[in-house]
Amino acid sequence: MHETTFAVLGTGGIGRRALEVSKAKDDLTPVAACDRHGVAVDHDGLDVDELLAATEGNIASEAQRASDEVSGDQPRTDGGTTVDDSSGGIKQAGADKGVAASVQADPTDAPIDDIIAESDTIDAVLIALPNLEHDFIPRVAERFAEADYEGVLVDVLKRSRVIGMLDEREEQLQDAGITFVCGAGATPGFLTGAAALAAQSFVEVHEVDIWWGVGLKSGYEDNRGTVREDIAHLDGYDIETARAMTDEEIEELVDEHDGVLEFHDMEHADDVLLERAGICDAEDVTVGGVLDLRNDEKPTTTTVTVTGETFDGEVATNTFELGDETSMEANVNGPALGYLKAAVRHNRAGDHGVFGPAELMPGF
Amino acid sequence: MHETTFAVLGTGGIGRRALEVSKAKDDLTPVAACDRHGVAVDHDGLDVDELLAATEGNIASEAQRASDEVSGDQPRTDGGTTVDDSSGGIKQAGADKGVAASVQADPTDAPIDDIIAESDTIDAVLIALPNLEHDFIPRVAERFAEADYEGVLVDVLKRSRVIGMLDEREEQLQDAGITFVCGAGATPGFLTGAAALAAQSFVEVHEVDIWWGVGLKSGYEDNRGTVREDIAHLDGYDIETARAMTDEEIEELVDEHDGVLEFHDMEHADDVLLERAGICDAEDVTVGGVLDLRNDEKPTTTTVTVTGETFDGEVATNTFELGDETSMEANVNGPALGYLKAAVRHNRAGDHGVFGPAELMPGF
Repeated sequence: MHETTFAVLGTGGIGRRALEVSKAKDDLTPVAACDRHGVAVDHDGLDVDELLAATEGNIASEAQRASDEVSGDQPRTDGGTTVDDSSGGIKQAGADKGVAASVQADPTDAPIDDIIAESDTIDAVLIALPNLEHDFIPRVAERFAEADYEGVLVDVLKRSRVIGMLDEREEQLQDAGITFVCGAGATPGFLTGAAALAAQSFVEVHEVDIWWGVGLKSGYEDNRGTVREDIAHLDGYDIETARAMTDEEIEELVDEHDGVLEFHDMEHADDVLLERAGICDAEDVTVGGVLDLRNDEKPTTTTVTVTGETFDGEVATNTFELGDETSMEANVNGPALGYLKAAVRHNRAGDHGVFGPAELMPGF
Repeated sequence: MHETTFAVLGTGGIGRRALEVSKAKDDLTPVAACDRHGVAVDHDGLDVDELLAATEGNIASEAQRASDEVSGDQPRTDGGTTVDDSSGGIKQAGADKGVAASVQADPTDAPIDDIIAESDTIDAVLIALPNLEHDFIPRVAERFAEADYEGVLVDVLKRSRVIGMLDEREEQLQDAGITFVCGAGATPGFLTGAAALAAQSFVEVHEVDIWWGVGLKSGYEDNRGTVREDIAHLDGYDIETARAMTDEEIEELVDEHDGVLEFHDMEHADDVLLERAGICDAEDVTVGGVLDLRNDEKPTTTTVTVTGETFDGEVATNTFELGDETSMEANVNGPALGYLKAAVRHNRAGDHGVFGPAELMPGF
């Protein structure tokens, strides 16, 4: 396999960890990273350790909030527990802030344009920005297409409705020569891929059940925004009511549940992505999970079960389970880079457009 | 997705069942099939039911033996329990034999050449021939390359050493424009793909353990050849000694084990295919399983476990389990056609060469 160069948009939780995971991958070279105020580019490969040290404060939720206020952006309205802890928050200490604090970086007012300007030699871009509005990531994709970028774009978004917005832009992405993989984190992403593979025993899939467990005690402070969004999935709440809650109200709710929030029938893009891949109807997919804010141990084992009928008339259930010791972060970033690499292969061959993770698996 | 046309070489167990499974796939159209003595081609789509009825006797092992004697071929030396029950055996009843008995077919002395002659409009070819000698399937691939076939070839072979023979031919296959997927059945294939996906949580994979269960009571008579080959994996046996055994000696051995044969450290291509994909060293992969010849129920649950270390330093094990009700046949043929479809996508984009199933998964 050729070497693959990639950029990271956003150095919140996901962006930082993607850089960290890439250190273990000989054939992946991070060459650019940015946040709101800084951009670092080195076509020979960034010094990841230095950059991570410089962006250390990026995952604090208070920083996120401050940054939202400065930029006038809406609070984050997308994503849930398992992936969307990426943040545009900025380092609060040091002479500069965030990426700009790195010796490899320059301050900028137009970080995405700066990355686009360097994108001729960048094979892939991981969009690790909070999806501030539903069409934020689709609009970022559009900007790359308008600049005739011919590489790979990967995001880790989660809401079903965003997929349709990307589809609307498919022709434009195709014309530019972009291979876009949407929803390539843990769920959708890793677990959607597992469902697509598990379906291979069957000629008809009856039901896909995705059930996740996340223990977030030590990461709670860094993931308050995510928790707020997850609350929108609870009975009696929606995005608007969750957004309107004060921190105190959220604490109260968490206390009422003894720190353990259980979610059912979440609006996760797994459903539309599996339907896209022809595996089952979106309505046959259920996503739920348990978030424990007072323990790091997972409160339940992350499990994908796929029930279907074989060609010889048997009904059976195939199961994929993640070891409880695998963190949310490991299960987001490994797959994000894994799908990125697969997409680069497709892109180099000339296979462009919008793909869900399940479409990069064996066909159903 | 476009419609995909495909041919099946060999109408033994795997070939027949691939045709049957394809009936459930709207976008897969079988347009050609052959065995030693007959070839059926219909570019609008074969009548699968009629063809299956005509080739009904093809999976009898006695027929296999008779056919080997007629053709002067060596007995089958490749494959094991889970996939290699494809057979060149021929129908023993009716005016014609095997495929030639179909109203859609013509008798032939050169079935593969006949398929090659029609291959301009065939997107993919499933090679469901017994790999009579280790280089039999590689030589079949060579013939397609020599004829400048520009499509997909898929096999379900299992022995590690065959992969190298395909690699030696990679340049020739690439030059012709062929995308060859080797080992795309249950194991390797389905389970190698599962291991590749399960590895995504980790930055380093310590161990992959593939453990299968097959219950074969009702299929024992049809799979005597396969059982003989599996015996070669038992302690104290190898391919030569197993081949030299009489049917009576095999019966005796099966009796000694009360019909249940347990295998450890099998030479299965899973190891080299996972190493090829950069996931782990071949020596970190173990393959074994239990074959029950007196029950149709699986004697053990088919399970893939992948143990590795995450980027944040945790060691964990991810697990993929197949429902016990899924037959060997379902787990061979679904994935074989699934990888075939994925390969067609790569092929159409211009991505040629030799691929293991794990290389068609998210990159590691």
